[in-house]
Amino acid sequence: MTDRRPPNPSTLWAEVLVSELAADGLSAVCIAPGSRSTPLTVAFAAHPDVEVYSHLDERSAAFFALGRARRTGEPTALVSTSGTAAANFHPAVIEAHQGRVPLLLLTADRPRDLRDSGANQTIDQVDLYGDAVRWAMDLPEARLEERPVEMLWTTAARALAAATGTPAGPVHLNCPFRKPLEPVETGEIDADFLDRIDRDGDEGPAVRTTGGTPVPAAEDVARIAETMESADRPLVVAGPADPPGIDAGRIAGLARAVGAPILADPLSGLRFGEHVRERDGESPRVVFGGYDAYLPDPDLAPDVVLRVGASPTSKPLRNWLSDVAPKQFLIDPAGGWREATYAATDLVVADPDRLVGDLLAVLETDGNDGSGDAGTSGSAGKWLEDFHRREAAHWSVVERATDPDRLAAAPFEGAVLAAALAEAPDPATVFVSNSMPIRDADRFGRPRAAELSVLANRGASGIDGITSTGLGAGSAVEEPLVIVTGDLAFYHDSNGLLAVGRCGVDATIVVLDNDGGGIFHMLPIEEFDPPFTEQFKTPHGLEFSYLAECYGLEFECVAPADFSERYRASLASAGTQVLSVAFDAEASHRRREELEERSLTGGNGDE
Amino acid sequence: MTDRRPPNPSTLWAEVLVSELAADGLSAVCIAPGSRSTPLTVAFAAHPDVEVYSHLDERSAAFFALGRARRTGEPTALVSTSGTAAANFHPAVIEAHQGRVPLLLLTADRPRDLRDSGANQTIDQVDLYGDAVRWAMDLPEARLEERPVEMLWTTAARALAAATGTPAGPVHLNCPFRKPLEPVETGEIDADFLDRIDRDGDEGPAVRTTGGTPVPAAEDVARIAETMESADRPLVVAGPADPPGIDAGRIAGLARAVGAPILADPLSGLRFGEHVRERDGESPRVVFGGYDAYLPDPDLAPDVVLRVGASPTSKPLRNWLSDVAPKQFLIDPAGGWREATYAATDLVVADPDRLVGDLLAVLETDGNDGSGDAGTSGSAGKWLEDFHRREAAHWSVVERATDPDRLAAAPFEGAVLAAALAEAPDPATVFVSNSMPIRDADRFGRPRAAELSVLANRGASGIDGITSTGLGAGSAVEEPLVIVTGDLAFYHDSNGLLAVGRCGVDATIVVLDNDGGGIFHMLPIEEFDPPFTEQFKTPHGLEFSYLAECYGLEFECVAPADFSERYRASLASAGTQVLSVAFDAEASHRRREELEERSLTGGNGDE
Repeated sequence: MTDRRPPNPSTLWAEVLVSELAADGLSAVCIAPGSRSTPLTVAFAAHPDVEVYSHLDERSAAFFALGRARRTGEPTALVSTSGTAAANFHPAVIEAHQGRVPLLLLTADRPRDLRDSGANQTIDQVDLYGDAVRWAMDLPEARLEERPVEMLWTTAARALAAATGTPAGPVHLNCPFRKPLEPVETGEIDADFLDRIDRDGDEGPAVRTTGGTPVPAAEDVARIAETMESADRPLVVAGPADPPGIDAGRIAGLARAVGAPILADPLSGLRFGEHVRERDGESPRVVFGGYDAYLPDPDLAPDVVLRVGASPTSKPLRNWLSDVAPKQFLIDPAGGWREATYAATDLVVADPDRLVGDLLAVLETDGNDGSGDAGTSGSAGKWLEDFHRREAAHWSVVERATDPDRLAAAPFEGAVLAAALAEAPDPATVFVSNSMPIRDADRFGRPRAAELSVLANRGASGIDGITSTGLGAGSAVEEPLVIVTGDLAFYHDSNGLLAVGRCGVDATIVVLDNDGGGIFHMLPIEEFDPPFTEQFKTPHGLEFSYLAECYGLEFECVAPADFSERYRASLASAGTQVLSVAFDAEASHRRREELEERSLTGGNGDE
Repeated sequence: MTDRRPPNPSTLWAEVLVSELAADGLSAVCIAPGSRSTPLTVAFAAHPDVEVYSHLDERSAAFFALGRARRTGEPTALVSTSGTAAANFHPAVIEAHQGRVPLLLLTADRPRDLRDSGANQTIDQVDLYGDAVRWAMDLPEARLEERPVEMLWTTAARALAAATGTPAGPVHLNCPFRKPLEPVETGEIDADFLDRIDRDGDEGPAVRTTGGTPVPAAEDVARIAETMESADRPLVVAGPADPPGIDAGRIAGLARAVGAPILADPLSGLRFGEHVRERDGESPRVVFGGYDAYLPDPDLAPDVVLRVGASPTSKPLRNWLSDVAPKQFLIDPAGGWREATYAATDLVVADPDRLVGDLLAVLETDGNDGSGDAGTSGSAGKWLEDFHRREAAHWSVVERATDPDRLAAAPFEGAVLAAALAEAPDPATVFVSNSMPIRDADRFGRPRAAELSVLANRGASGIDGITSTGLGAGSAVEEPLVIVTGDLAFYHDSNGLLAVGRCGVDATIVVLDNDGGGIFHMLPIEEFDPPFTEQFKTPHGLEFSYLAECYGLEFECVAPADFSERYRASLASAGTQVLSVAFDAEASHRRREELEERSLTGGNGDE
């Protein structure tokens, strides 16, 4: 709190809460305007250590907060007024729950005696988000006594601890406030009371929490190490990472030590980065991508799999693991089961970084020095070589198909994802929409030794809030921001574009515009028209140039063959550009299928 | 079901459900595209008796459905795919819950064995809307046996009965489907089974439900009638009506019989209509509006109040009733307590139309013929006259202030609401946003003998979903549709504009553009800047003409003094026009305060 004496109980209460949250490390909040939330808004706006992002649509605000927290791994707070405003947070809350992203939801509420009484803008906000939050507390109203204030300090600490615990996720504090809500003097707060709740100079939080992460017993680590080491065809499968991500160098070291390829989801934090080297000492590159296009393959069948992260984006990979039925260790710090084929055989409740470190230590003690020679010769060498051979064939197919001349004749959406990732600056944050873009990023995003933070909302895989989540991620960093989205997702979160100017986030926004739900061309419903066109494909014919103009953004229609050039130009310029690349969804899918056939057969055959 | 044999279990299941819902009277559904919901979408699209509205944003879809159901009083269904799509319904579900609007939420889900397993786009949808639904059922998956099918028939009937019960509200059926989702033949369904579940020609619903409404005992009716009749200053207060509204002629008859003025909320269904006559036989007009501007007034203090509907929009009215502390009968068919000052003395659980009819019958038996002579002479006459005198003074203030010349010099937003209601065609549907527009409709909307259906989302009073709710209301009727909204609400539901073209609803959309949250100028926070401008007023500077262009709408900036003329022109033309009327929020509020002062002092004083 500042030296200024809070003028009334609600103002004091919000100042105590905000000040404790800041002392506990909270550094950003997204606020939508409202009256009941005035005490919180005033306290946040006045706090020097908390960045305030003002939004007008609570749904977009929540996704923005989600994006920021996803990028940083640190909690972002949200403030709403009472009523349906709070319900607009719900989609992002569910994504945060399933994506393990720390969020702190502060919903202002009417005092208890106004609930369920027909009072204006008053709904039942208690447990509004059901099971989708780690912890929910209906706070008491301001009360000028020591214990309630101590309770508030403790609640602030507990809320952030719960949001950043294992697994991380959203926490909901419902905050009832009584009038006056504004910082008007009521004479209720005296200096004596402020002295009594003074905490020796306000240094640091009143309650400090120290988190823990699960580690397995030494004999369990030894057993897993032994299994990996003695496997003929060990494999690491890295699904989408929980924020803030995984230690890429360490798990690459483990893979080298046991001669295991890493199939790195584009969202794993492992497909791109410093650790992606063609050779590391004696060891060839162990990180692989694009497998979505060249699985199943009998040469690539593992006997032991170590899985980290969430369920991989690639359906061919998931089905192949289920078909091959290797021994599969699911490593999950929260003990979650994120493997819907039910083919995994071992659940290991462990922090992946800690476990990988412990496994490396055991392997070194056993005489393997961890420098990576396991993968260089003999059957282990053959095992890695098979992956290199198949992957190389796939990338040669992709290279030919993404040649500008070829692309002009046979455009496909995957080429945009290939270029967006291949030509993103180092470092950059690249946020990718659900539906086809993330699938194409998986298939066509080639591993690179560049620090790309590739993110998506893969917890619940909705197409809502995409633009906002991307902009929120970008708000946390100085590096360039790229958002790749589809036309339906771009429309769905059109309100999110307001944050470009309002929150000062620049981006290159790539819209793959196939005028409707292109993904449905991949599904059997394509054969049934009606209702295919009207109810599934749903062409809308929207001219997004007007939308860009409404939000003051530069807009450009780009031909698929020109994309790389225009993309580089956008990345080199200031401000926000919307690059709209039009595709015929059906033709694009047919082309994708052709390329899949070619990759599956080892890259042979002419174009 | 049609004669065609359903090709697989999921398709059959959805056809049975949709066909029963249609037989039970369901006539409209809003569908957002998705894969998991394919069986429902296909069944609805093929059904001849159900109107299908296709939407791309589930939040807007839900508000559109809400608007339609609010206008008709009949349930509208909603279909979403699995995942966060369903959570986007939540704001409208809460509004439907609190506004007593029948909605049927059909959320497609993954089969049970894919839940909480990391399966894609799979969230916990069971009880997703908490206490905000009348009934929730997690349906079984398709099962080719008689009892499950009979259960499905029964569930369809129960769902619509619960949605239209007392109180009406949303009902949630979570619908898990197993692949194939598309109508592809699997050979599982044989003719024998279809014969066994055949219901004698498919005529009418399998299960018929008959609703009931609460009526008080005869002695209770007699007691209330006696209290009203013997009151010196009886008053009827009609708050926002539950859909489908109240019998206006009947309650006007009761008011005339006992000499009670009716203070008619703009959303009560009583401020506008055939029953609003300056004289009805011996009786002067009993319906009053604008009281928001001329209360409190000691001459207008009632001794007995009969209240119907929800809590009135007018805060001066609510506070005045609390201050005067008359005997107050709250009539509520659901036994709800919608009176947050806790000043009412009697809760009467009764259907208002039935109770009013019963009261009239008692009064007639007692010798009062119900023709309305109670209000014409003596103290009862004086009582009504006082209201007429005060109301007339208010309307003369408004008339002077809304003169075009005066308006050019001293514009205020209320003038737009005054004109929008005074010049709306007869009949018309007028949907009014929360925040200032509904308050101004209350204060400046003069009672008229025109069939205006004036609607707003007053259940939870959010500014979300306004455009969609208005368009949904308009979709149900042939009469002209007017939507009056503010700039924040217009931005918040910008996606809702897609329905103009996509769902074929024409409207005159009036945007009161004061570039931010004008209502905050009414609150004490105005005095604290910062954070007032950045966090409360939140100017955005958006050019809505681009938004209109994106959605193919005509757009016009209109000066306040020209509004009436341009409004009439829009009403006379086809298509959808957006009329944007710019105001300086602060100046508008100061003008509103001046007029309030003048109305409160009886209309005296020069401009």
